[in-house]
Amino acid sequence: MSERLQRLRARMTDVGLDAFLVGAPAEDTFHTLAANRRYLSGFKGSMAWLLVTADAAFIAVDFRYFEQAERESPGFSLFRTSGDMKSWFGSLIGQAALTGKRIGFEPAGVTMRDYQAMKKALEKMPPDERPKLLTAPPIVEELRAIKEPEEIAAIQRAVDLGDEAFQAVAQRIEPGLTERQVAWEIEMYAREHGAEGMSFETIVTAGPWAAMPHAQPRDRPIEAGQPIVIDMGVRVDGYCSDLTRTIVAGGESDDRFREIYDIVLTAQLTAEELVKSGMGGEEAHMLAHNVIEEAGYGENFGHGLGHGVGLLVHEAPRLAKTSKDELKDGMVATIEPGIYISGWGGVRIEDMVVFENGKARVMSHAPKLVA
Amino acid sequence: MSERLQRLRARMTDVGLDAFLVGAPAEDTFHTLAANRRYLSGFKGSMAWLLVTADAAFIAVDFRYFEQAERESPGFSLFRTSGDMKSWFGSLIGQAALTGKRIGFEPAGVTMRDYQAMKKALEKMPPDERPKLLTAPPIVEELRAIKEPEEIAAIQRAVDLGDEAFQAVAQRIEPGLTERQVAWEIEMYAREHGAEGMSFETIVTAGPWAAMPHAQPRDRPIEAGQPIVIDMGVRVDGYCSDLTRTIVAGGESDDRFREIYDIVLTAQLTAEELVKSGMGGEEAHMLAHNVIEEAGYGENFGHGLGHGVGLLVHEAPRLAKTSKDELKDGMVATIEPGIYISGWGGVRIEDMVVFENGKARVMSHAPKLVA
Repeated sequence: MSERLQRLRARMTDVGLDAFLVGAPAEDTFHTLAANRRYLSGFKGSMAWLLVTADAAFIAVDFRYFEQAERESPGFSLFRTSGDMKSWFGSLIGQAALTGKRIGFEPAGVTMRDYQAMKKALEKMPPDERPKLLTAPPIVEELRAIKEPEEIAAIQRAVDLGDEAFQAVAQRIEPGLTERQVAWEIEMYAREHGAEGMSFETIVTAGPWAAMPHAQPRDRPIEAGQPIVIDMGVRVDGYCSDLTRTIVAGGESDDRFREIYDIVLTAQLTAEELVKSGMGGEEAHMLAHNVIEEAGYGENFGHGLGHGVGLLVHEAPRLAKTSKDELKDGMVATIEPGIYISGWGGVRIEDMVVFENGKARVMSHAPKLVA
Repeated sequence: MSERLQRLRARMTDVGLDAFLVGAPAEDTFHTLAANRRYLSGFKGSMAWLLVTADAAFIAVDFRYFEQAERESPGFSLFRTSGDMKSWFGSLIGQAALTGKRIGFEPAGVTMRDYQAMKKALEKMPPDERPKLLTAPPIVEELRAIKEPEEIAAIQRAVDLGDEAFQAVAQRIEPGLTERQVAWEIEMYAREHGAEGMSFETIVTAGPWAAMPHAQPRDRPIEAGQPIVIDMGVRVDGYCSDLTRTIVAGGESDDRFREIYDIVLTAQLTAEELVKSGMGGEEAHMLAHNVIEEAGYGENFGHGLGHGVGLLVHEAPRLAKTSKDELKDGMVATIEPGIYISGWGGVRIEDMVVFENGKARVMSHAPKLVA
């Protein structure tokens, strides 16, 4: 953990910041916005601010988390908060010796409410002593995008458990089970075999419902021959997995399904084989997009090819048409092309890969078509 | 739903706004920040902006949610987004005929990143046509704090299922089961009996661990005679329940436990009996605080007495020392005093109540001490 702080401090120097602030958004947003906090400090609770300076690191928590912060974040000085941020922020600034300094924060991790509270707190200080609050480039996200070996090992454990949960349940899917039942079976399997939780709400969509890539599972029985998109992930030791398979349970699928499935699978395998470290996120996306477009379904692949996965199920890099990210060794990402046809349904196939020695090594081993 | 928009519009007029914007934060923050969106529009997806004007209402979603938004939010005009907010926000403003108007947003629902994207989009407009972006008072939260009868019915269903899950599992707790196993048993029961999910990660803390009100359950066996704090809630039809019981499973508890339990229970029942509509959140808090303070444990009750519950497990009103909220008929809140002693453990007892005819009616019926 302390190496991470060193790397953060190096980046802070690069971008001209005296301090870096990680936001503490509303309580239940743990999974989304606590990742930077957990990455830097090890703190697993749901509410804490971190303030890292060149020679100190503070974790600011209220009453509920004093003991937990001391135990989980031994490299940080505990700052005890009470009441509104505008009443304690000035004192934290004083303790961190930041008068007149430049404090950066990530704009996606700080709400306008918190920003206004900080501003009010600073207005109580004499103008020449006030530090500057600056929006920072996403330097912790950048750090997090390149995984450490222990992180890759944790992600592989999550991927393996996700694969296992998918296989265990996919074999048992029969017409008549509802989408929601299938989603719950997957979650139960994962939780009973060591998952802390799911990476996101499991998607199980059958037939035309699968035309929406992110629809929620319904209390509706799956019919024989219907293609079913299952998109699922588990969390192990804080790290996420993400897997999509499209299967047919019972009965015969139609010809259109087999045609579309083959196109998506070809696009997916092509991208996995040709994607390289050093490539841009857009170029990677086009590897799969071109296959789908040449087959006549370019308009039906409306989302990006993939995204980074780590403490969050969606993080840097992005593999998509508008991405400016560069793929690098140590990154972990999904490769998940899809074709969606309103009124008919959809097919999506997704693996996770890790970039090593310039190429993508596939981490997911769940079978791609379960009869 | 359309009545809600009417009431929102009335409040917009009161506070001098031409439009109101509900933020769309990062994808996984559904449970926290999607409540206003779901409340106003019925949309259950994880990413959408709403823009409500005096005579129109837009739901802005990307590709993934076009179909879902049309189905779940028929009262809203679909605005199809693609790419960065700064590329589409100006066109939404144009379509909503908001040039030169005042647009409010809730500061806790908009991150600095989104705010900056909106600002950039507006800078492309001629200065005299730009609408004003203003932080609004929490008018949707205020609307949500007073529950409609159907909302109270949904909350009661969640409370009843939570009570049932607690009872079913509490009877089976034996020394040797781990905290995490107990939490998982509760969740399984709830999910298999109709819960969409849990309101929050179930807390099961035994012995000294319970001195931290919000600690996570451990893989550690519960010992005979140890007090166990169980704090849990389920979601039914989008609405949350919240329940805490402190129990002893197997063996004899110590005298200190019985002393402290009695104080907390007295404080809890006193507050439930004396709390009234029209009372302030601070006065309500003091009803319980005074009982605990007179018994000599004032320092050990470090959190607020309670909080509103609805689509979110923590919402307005707050019952706490620093609260300025006024309790009103139609509000639903928790009453949950506690005493925490570092090295020993804790006791917390929590019911949910609804304010009716000036008084609190207790909604929770789980037994208060399970032998």
